Amino acid sequence: MDPLITSPANPSLKLARRLRERKVREQSGLFYVEGIRLVAEALAQGWSIEMLIIAPDRLSSEFAYQKVEAARARGIRVVEVSPRAFESLSLKENPQGIAAVIHQRWGSLSAVRPDKGELWIGLEAIQDPGNLGTILRTAEAVGAQGVVLLEHTTDPYDPAAVRASMGAIFTQQLVRTSREVFLRWVAEHHPPLIGTSDKAAQDYHDFIYPEGLMLLMGSEREGLSPVYASLCQAMVAIPMVGRVDSLNVAVATAIVLYEIFNQRRRKGKLTSACKGEERIP
Amino acid sequence: MDPLITSPANPSLKLARRLRERKVREQSGLFYVEGIRLVAEALAQGWSIEMLIIAPDRLSSEFAYQKVEAARARGIRVVEVSPRAFESLSLKENPQGIAAVIHQRWGSLSAVRPDKGELWIGLEAIQDPGNLGTILRTAEAVGAQGVVLLEHTTDPYDPAAVRASMGAIFTQQLVRTSREVFLRWVAEHHPPLIGTSDKAAQDYHDFIYPEGLMLLMGSEREGLSPVYASLCQAMVAIPMVGRVDSLNVAVATAIVLYEIFNQRRRKGKLTSACKGEERIP
Repeated sequence: MDPLITSPANPSLKLARRLRERKVREQSGLFYVEGIRLVAEALAQGWSIEMLIIAPDRLSSEFAYQKVEAARARGIRVVEVSPRAFESLSLKENPQGIAAVIHQRWGSLSAVRPDKGELWIGLEAIQDPGNLGTILRTAEAVGAQGVVLLEHTTDPYDPAAVRASMGAIFTQQLVRTSREVFLRWVAEHHPPLIGTSDKAAQDYHDFIYPEGLMLLMGSEREGLSPVYASLCQAMVAIPMVGRVDSLNVAVATAIVLYEIFNQRRRKGKLTSACKGEERIP
Repeated sequence: MDPLITSPANPSLKLARRLRERKVREQSGLFYVEGIRLVAEALAQGWSIEMLIIAPDRLSSEFAYQKVEAARARGIRVVEVSPRAFESLSLKENPQGIAAVIHQRWGSLSAVRPDKGELWIGLEAIQDPGNLGTILRTAEAVGAQGVVLLEHTTDPYDPAAVRASMGAIFTQQLVRTSREVFLRWVAEHHPPLIGTSDKAAQDYHDFIYPEGLMLLMGSEREGLSPVYASLCQAMVAIPMVGRVDSLNVAVATAIVLYEIFNQRRRKGKLTSACKGEERIP
């Protein structure tokens, strides 16, 4: 076993710290996660882990030790560091003493098939990583396949996005694409796209959503731009009273996703009920 | 007119900066807001403004100048500072050059009447000011009266909460109370309380919400504690599939609030439709 690393200047720790910067994440194709919950989910979902970093003196749970041993058995490099060295890279107070450097995964747009019954979310130029992570978390809760990032959307592998996703970063598929490629994909597959706009006449709650669809959400400030709105089969609005004229983008996404999810659930119930009736002579 | 203040050590600027600390806000009963949108809303809603702070060299819009002149005419103190002095207190990059120090407003629990048809949100020990501000924003959008803060809930006058509220801080009523006072209030008024829990058997979407109610939401980590859950007429759950076992608290609040809002809207529509029928002979 390697000796315990005590210097924050150690190259592995330096890399882990530098992964806070988007540029470094883009160049390396890696990202950093912290805490036993997220590390365990990455292992459970079979992500390619570059290294685990642990501070044995801080690791208190048996569960965490088991995960570390299982990772070691799978040939994953485990870097052991002193509590102080760990604190040099931790983004939390009282860190749990476990972190991982992981290889990013990006899916291809050609595998995105809302026309085959899948539920996807398309995000145009979302700026806040916390919002993006929260959207991933909600997407996972309603059984969506994943998120397509359009234009200059913030990085889902930003530590704030990873944290806000509560592990959904490891189960939701992530695709990023240019406008050109997206337009070609739309022309080829004619996917059912539903957009949101506070100016739309269609109430999101009265609309019957297609079986599969991609929900397009615009940026915090600008909303969905005309080029994307024009591709949509329908634009829906979330009604508001009172003095605010918009909702937080993660909240707005959740409200529409739950409407879609409720319609799917109702349909499922109706289908089972009908099947049930068929069995009754 | 006073000469332009150039020193960040000026007492007015010092006070504005110190309002970032909760302790200073509690002691002074003041809070700090920044940007023309929020300042204009505070003026429009008639809040008691201790002072406006402006950097004339940064104020570019005619709208902002009009608001400043209107405030001056109402006898509000306007402190003019240099761009650099303004930057010393600004929480933003490229600040708009207008901020205000405002007196906090707290309502009384005795005026909170969900039993009279009002919609309120009760929050137990919410930790994140961004979540609290986002909840205020959504509460305003669905026509709620306000938010009751229970236990050690974060401060709605925290700059991050004010910012996330997008102005709803000035229109939603805010009440904070101890557990004892809340229990006495419940015993006296028997308000319809509806709580949320991921363990509840009742689906939030199948439940018929009473005309007026207080929606009780628990903290990010712990959920609603038994003492509050036991007061509730019903506990509802938001169903989830996938690998996450909870939603962001601002998202969960929004999903239930929009269900309540949709039921109220439908009722309104039905009532109007029935009234219409009555008029047809």
